[in-house]
Order: sequence, then structure tokens, then C-alpha cells
Amino acid sequence: MTRIGLLGAAGRMGRAIADAAPTAGATIAGGVDRDGVVIGSHEDALALARDCDVLVDFSAPSALAGHLEAARTANRPIVIGTTGLAAEHHALIDEAAADIPILQAANTSLGVNLLARLVQQAAQALGEDWDIEVVEMHHRHKVDAPSGTALLLGQAAAGGRGIDLADVTTERTGLRTPGSIGFAALRGGSVAGDHMVVLATEGERIELGHRAENRGIFARGAVRAALWLAGRPAGRYTMGDVLGL
Amino acid sequence: MTRIGLLGAAGRMGRAIADAAPTAGATIAGGVDRDGVVIGSHEDALALARDCDVLVDFSAPSALAGHLEAARTANRPIVIGTTGLAAEHHALIDEAAADIPILQAANTSLGVNLLARLVQQAAQALGEDWDIEVVEMHHRHKVDAPSGTALLLGQAAAGGRGIDLADVTTERTGLRTPGSIGFAALRGGSVAGDHMVVLATEGERIELGHRAENRGIFARGAVRAALWLAGRPAGRYTMGDVLGL
Amino acid sequence: MTRIGLLGAAGRMGRAIADAAPTAGATIAGGVDRDGVVIGSHEDALALARDCDVLVDFSAPSALAGHLEAARTANRPIVIGTTGLAAEHHALIDEAAADIPILQAANTSLGVNLLARLVQQAAQALGEDWDIEVVEMHHRHKVDAPSGTALLLGQAAAGGRGIDLADVTTERTGLRTPGSIGFAALRGGSVAGDHMVVLATEGERIELGHRAENRGIFARGAVRAALWLAGRPAGRYTMGDVLGL
Amino acid sequence: MTRIGLLGAAGRMGRAIADAAPTAGATIAGGVDRDGVVIGSHEDALALARDCDVLVDFSAPSALAGHLEAARTANRPIVIGTTGLAAEHHALIDEAAADIPILQAANTSLGVNLLARLVQQAAQALGEDWDIEVVEMHHRHKVDAPSGTALLLGQAAAGGRGIDLADVTTERTGLRTPGSIGFAALRGGSVAGDHMVVLATEGERIELGHRAENRGIFARGAVRAALWLAGRPAGRYTMGDVLGL
Repeated sequence: MTRIGLLGAAGRMGRAIADAAPTAGATIAGGVDRDGVVIGSHEDALALARDCDVLVDFSAPSALAGHLEAARTANRPIVIGTTGLAAEHHALIDEAAADIPILQAANTSLGVNLLARLVQQAAQALGEDWDIEVVEMHHRHKVDAPSGTALLLGQAAAGGRGIDLADVTTERTGLRTPGSIGFAALRGGSVAGDHMVVLATEGERIELGHRAENRGIFARGAVRAALWLAGRPAGRYTMGDVLGL
Repeated sequence: MTRIGLLGAAGRMGRAIADAAPTAGATIAGGVDRDGVVIGSHEDALALARDCDVLVDFSAPSALAGHLEAARTANRPIVIGTTGLAAEHHALIDEAAADIPILQAANTSLGVNLLARLVQQAAQALGEDWDIEVVEMHHRHKVDAPSGTALLLGQAAAGGRGIDLADVTTERTGLRTPGSIGFAALRGGSVAGDHMVVLATEGERIELGHRAENRGIFARGAVRAALWLAGRPAGRYTMGDVLGL
Repeated sequence: MTRIGLLGAAGRMGRAIADAAPTAGATIAGGVDRDGVVIGSHEDALALARDCDVLVDFSAPSALAGHLEAARTANRPIVIGTTGLAAEHHALIDEAAADIPILQAANTSLGVNLLARLVQQAAQALGEDWDIEVVEMHHRHKVDAPSGTALLLGQAAAGGRGIDLADVTTERTGLRTPGSIGFAALRGGSVAGDHMVVLATEGERIELGHRAENRGIFARGAVRAALWLAGRPAGRYTMGDVLGL
Repeated sequence: MTRIGLLGAAGRMGRAIADAAPTAGATIAGGVDRDGVVIGSHEDALALARDCDVLVDFSAPSALAGHLEAARTANRPIVIGTTGLAAEHHALIDEAAADIPILQAANTSLGVNLLARLVQQAAQALGEDWDIEVVEMHHRHKVDAPSGTALLLGQAAAGGRGIDLADVTTERTGLRTPGSIGFAALRGGSVAGDHMVVLATEGERIELGHRAENRGIFARGAVRAALWLAGRPAGRYTMGDVLGL
């Protein structure tokens, strides 16, 4: 059974991955965080890397360089789910990917990543006479609107059309601008996250949606990504590769 | 069979009502518009009023006073679907309703009016720990957002809570304001009009929606209102009365 | 703060109510089950009844007679959420309700009970030219189809029309029977329970739905029912009374 | 501008295509049906084929052989939307496709064909721990259930998994059979055709849907297919090719 080394093991996602691993076909070899050992007995990232099959990192951008160095030294694949990465972090990942397999994803839900790919294809296949709108609903405590995942889906749609999302996003204050991609956000209750992309033209509509029931889906997706990544050749991968798309 | 006298017979709604009447159990006694006879041979509103069972008026606010006068003189009930009425027009309607039965409605769809009543009841029955959001989708050419029907539904929700919609409508730019009623608008393709009110609390959601396929539903609702109004005592009525709610 | 006495405290719903009470404005005075004390120190139902403001019973039909006797002796209101009740149990409840306030409900979700009421009203207000269909989705392990809640919603619709559901439910194998109420069931994943009633006529549709995220909504509804019941006069009540409908 | 020759011009689809052509960038060169000239002055299929850029055939299976012969003789591409084709007709199409470009489709809606492709990809990418269900709603007069399009979507899902739909379709009378594909049908009002495929696993769901407002979408799709086919090399094509998928 594949043995996962958890980096950022004390965080919410780290603990969720430890919970999800057994039913997803993996075991946790150990877990460390910035303050030291969380699961098992490995004293640091390098010791953990040497004693696992694949690393999974949901920590902080500031820890990335050290984690990549540990992975390279131990020659282990690494899944990076840490968010808030800047251009400099992506450059570090690209450099390390010359030596080891690395999968980086801002969202590790299989469903959301698949949906993004389907949205891209739909936007590409259908002409500009199909209007694209993105609507999402989240719990009442969510601060940002539209959600990061809604923007990810909008970017997939824009990418399918070969344009830049920033050029076509508009405020919905009056008449629709042809070619624009609109966003609408609902907030209420404890909704974990619903997203739908609507493509509408004269006489018909396509609706492509995803409903998350809880945050465990991100942990399960990360474990599946780790299982997939173990044994691959060096290079940089995405959740789309895991899905075989 | 009930004989309808059409006022505003040359307009889009007038023609739609003439089309809808036969299958809805009514006949058209005649129709006039500001430029004269449209259907049949009655020379003006008064002549038409005297030769029908009930008047249906989808004309212009400026014609309202004359139409009410004709209805009173002939002692006929009148359904008023004309939009854009101001306070002065409502005062005229209230005055005439002392003598004849009058049903005035900004939206004559049975479904939309029923939905508004259900939304009002839901908002009243559920506490303030249920967040209320209104989302709608219309065709790409619609100018206003949110739609008039979305606002009508928001007012129904606010009314159920005993508050004023203007006090609780907010822009969706960040964290949800407790007690607010949010609106979201999608635009695309040729959608005739979809509306949904979401009431969401911890762990559950109620979704109350309406989908219009075409504008014929307004004509059918107006005919049903006319059939219902014929034979009622003097007074002012609403679509809610037609629905028996 | 209202003090709840839990009967059936060791069961899944009993534990959920104990969890939900604090955030719902109640405290747990104690809890017993058929094998004795579960929460606190009351030795049996009668001792617990004497030391609480209101009883909540999610146990078994066979325990009902004893629980009702305890409630009457201690003169305490009781919420009964036990399922599987037969006519004889309802007779016992009716008899006891002459002396104490009793609220019995097969489903204590506020949302589902409100939805049922709205469906009843919609079916009553709209004529028979509106076709009624009920569709639901539940997790892959659910054994029965359609769900009990789907049938409850179908009964509400039939009740609104003044007919018996058994007379109008049909298999969907071919052409729709006029006046029938159809059921459709989807099964998959871990869906806690989605229900939607569709009322459709020429040109328009009303969709009335409920989405449950988890089973905690039944516990919260039971607590709210208990808070509402405490202090009422003797009689038999429903969740509809709690909702003020 | 591309000039279309209409075969089966007197039928419902033939007339719809004649209506749709001008706004879709094509003109109608002429139209014939089994009883002779319908549009223009060409006396038969061969005369029409010689005077157009591309043929569009929505007639009857019995007319197919003659239409293919006319297309080959005149060396013209042909779109075949005729339904009810048997194995022998497909053999004729394959044979003719050696000489001329032929696009055959049971459903010419761009949206439905795109959706089928997306469903196939989703079923392929996601493992068998994602349950697949197909739900559709149509007007009250539809005789068959599930709809032909629902079956087409189910076949796309089965194809994505490399299995045969007939092996995995089950009645929904109790517990879900692992690996099955379920169908549910709603009937009511005048719904032109709504379809949704749900893929559900632990904690998340993907919903891929299509809503048709009217039958004009099939005509527009046929015209777009004709524009795409004109100028292609000989061979047999599908709507998926038009969509570039």
C-alpha cells in the first residue's frame, strides 16, 4: 500500500487527508508541520521523505522551497496543494520538476477539475453565439464573491475560446455585453459549494454543474493524486492528468 | 360563454389574449385600441363595454381613466394588466372599485403570482436564521437587472418578514449582511424567464422556482382572471384572489 | 432556558438532539433509553419527566404507551418523533392529548414540513391542468424508492386537490394519465436527500424543492418543536403549527 | 452563401430548416418531397442536387437510397437527419461515403450532441465509484419513457466506461445495483425537453444538463452541419465532428 508523507500535517487539510487515506487505499507514513512531528516519529521533512512513497504538501508558500529540496534529495514525488503560490513559487516547482514528478493544484477535487475541463471543451466547441454565465452558492460566512472556483471555471471557459477572462468579465448592471462571461453569487446557510456554468443560445441551454457536500472531497482528491503520481517519471502534472484528460 | 371586451387590442398582449381566449373558455366580443376598432365593430370603449361580460385592459396608463369610466357607465367588471401605473392611477382604480369589480395585476401569470404567495408564507414561517436569495435568468436582450418579477418575489419575501425590501437589499460585494435579501441575475440566449427564491439555513435549503416557456402564460392568466371576475361583487381584487389564496 | 428530557437518548436521533440542543436555545435535563440512564441520573422516564420542561421521544413504538403515561403523570408536554407508529399508537396519542400538549411528526425538518404545506397550497390553487410530479435523489445505499418524504409530498399535493394519493399514483411506463401524480427516484453517491415537486402546465412550471445537507436538520427541528410546545395548552399539534401555518 | 437543397421539404423539420436557414447563413436552393416540388422549381432530387451546394435530408428511410444516389451522381455532400434508419440504411450510407461527404445524425441539436460527448468523457475520467443517473422531463403528451435522447446520453456514459448500456440499465425498485445506470422520467405541461446526467460519489456530484426551449434547435443544428459539411472530403461524419470534438 502506498505510504504518504504529510507536510502541513497539523492543518485542516492535513488532518482531513490523514482521515481520508485509509479508505482511499493509502497509509500515512508520518506527518510533520513547521513545529515538528505531528504523526509518527520523523523529525523533519527530509527524514519523512526518505521513509515514504510520495509526499503531500498542504502547508504554506514559505515552506515550499524546503519541501521541494527534501523531495529532490530523497527522490520522491510530491503533490502540492498549498494555496497562495506566487510566480516565484511556480518557478521553483518548474525547476524541481526536472528531477522529480510534481503535481500542483489549487483545487484537488476531482469533480471540480473535471468540470473545468468540460467547460473548456464546451466553450471551445460552441460558437460565440452561446452566452456563458457562471453562478455559485456558498455558505453565509464566505467573504469573497465570486468564489475562487467560479473564477477557475470562468478561466476554463475563456481558455476554451482563446481569450483572457479579464477582458470579458463584466458587472451585471444592464444589457449584456456580447462575448462577456458573467458571474453571479448566492450566499446563505451552510452550503459547502455549488457551481454551475450556463451556456445559452437561441432555443437551448447547456448547464454544467458541481455540488460539494463537504470539504472531504479535497482530501480524497489529494490522496488519489498521490496514488497516481507515485511511480511517474519526473515532470510537472495537473489534476487533469490524474483524470486522464 | 363569457364574452371579453379587449382594450388595447392592437398591442402584443391584446393579440395574445385574443389568441388564448378560445382554448381558455372565453370568446372575444370585440377589441378597440386608441386608434379605433381592432376586432369586431364597436366604435369605442363604452360601446364595447355595453356589449361584453367583462373588460380586459392592456393599454396605456393615459387611457386608464376613460376605460374605468366606460366600465362604470356600462356596469361591467374590468381586469387591468396595464403596466407603469402611478399612485394617481391606483387612486382612480380604488374609487371605481366602489361601484364595479376590478382586478389589477402587474403580472398576470398564475404561476408567478402563486409563487409570490408561497415565498411570502415561507419567509413568514421560517425565522431570520434562513437567508433569502433571489436568482433569475432571462434572454440576452433584457435591459434591466434584476427583473421586475425578481423584485416582486423579493418584496413578497420581505413582506412575509414584515420588513421593507428597500431596507434589506444589498450589493453582493463581500460578506453577507445578516437579514439581507440578495439578488443575482443571469443573462443569455433566449430564456423567456426563470426565477428561483432560495431560503437557506444550517443544513438545509428550500428552493421555490418558476420557469416560463413563453409570454402566452400572461395572456392565459388574464383570461382566467376575467372569467373569475365576471359576476363578483364590486371591489378591488388581485391574482391572489383568483388563485383562492 | 428550556430543559429537555430525552427519551430514546441512546439512539442516533437522541444523540443528535443532545448535540443540537445547546445552539438551539435548550439544555438537556437528562436522557434515558430502554436500558436505563444515558445522560444525567434520572432512573426512568417518569423521574426524567418530573425534572424537565418538555419531553422529546425518539425511541420505539413499543415504548410509546409508557412514555405517554409518564408525561401525563408528570403533566409535561411531549414531542414524539418515533417512526413506525400504527393506528393503535395514534389512538393512544389522541387520548393523552386530552390532558397534555403532544406534537407528533414523522419528519421533524422545518424545511420539509414547510415545503409540504406549500405543495398542498399550490396543488389546491392551481387547477387540474397543472400536472404534478415528484422527483428525489438520495445516497446509493437507500433501500426504498420513492422515499418516505417523497410520498409525504405527494400526499400533500393530493390533499390539496381533495383526492387520495393511492388513486392517482401511476407507474411511468408510457403516456401520462391525466390527473396522476408521478414519482421519480435517483440514487447515487452520498446525497443526504433532495426533493422537488414540479407543477407544470402549458407554457410554465413551478418547482418547489428542498435540499438536506445532513441529518442534523431533524434534530434541530425537534428542538425547535420542543421549545414551541412548552407552555401550550393540552391538545395534539403538528410541525405545521410550529411553523405557524 | 451556401445553398441548401432540402429533401423532405414538406415535413415539419423541412419547414423548420427553411425557416432557420436565413439567420444561420444559408439560403434554400429548393425543396422537394415525395409528392414533388415544395420550394422552387426543381423537379426531383437529382435536379435539386445539381443546383445546390449541399443536400439536407429529413424524409423517410424508404427514400434514402434514391437520395444517396442523387447526391453521388451530382457529387454533392448530404446531411441525413431522417430517423428510423435500420442496419441496411447505415450500410448504404457507408457505401456512399466512399464517394461523397455524408453526415448522419439522429439528433441534430448542437447542445445535445456536445452534452453527450461531455458525458462520455466524464464517465471515462471518473471511476466506477461515481454513480450515473439520467433524468429527463418532457411534455404531458410524450408517449415513450425514457426519451430517445436520455438513452443516447446513457449510451454515451456507458461508452465512456467501455460497457454496454443494456448490461447496466436497471429498474429502480429498490437498492441501487453498483455500476448500473439509472433512468428517471418526468412528464408534464408543455416542456420541450430537459435532460440531466448526474454523476455522484461520496461528497460530491457533477450535473450535466441540457434544456431545449423549442424544436427550432434541431433545424439550426442541421443548417450548421450543412455549412460545415460543404467542401469536406468524402467520408462519413457526425455532429461531434461539426463540434470539433
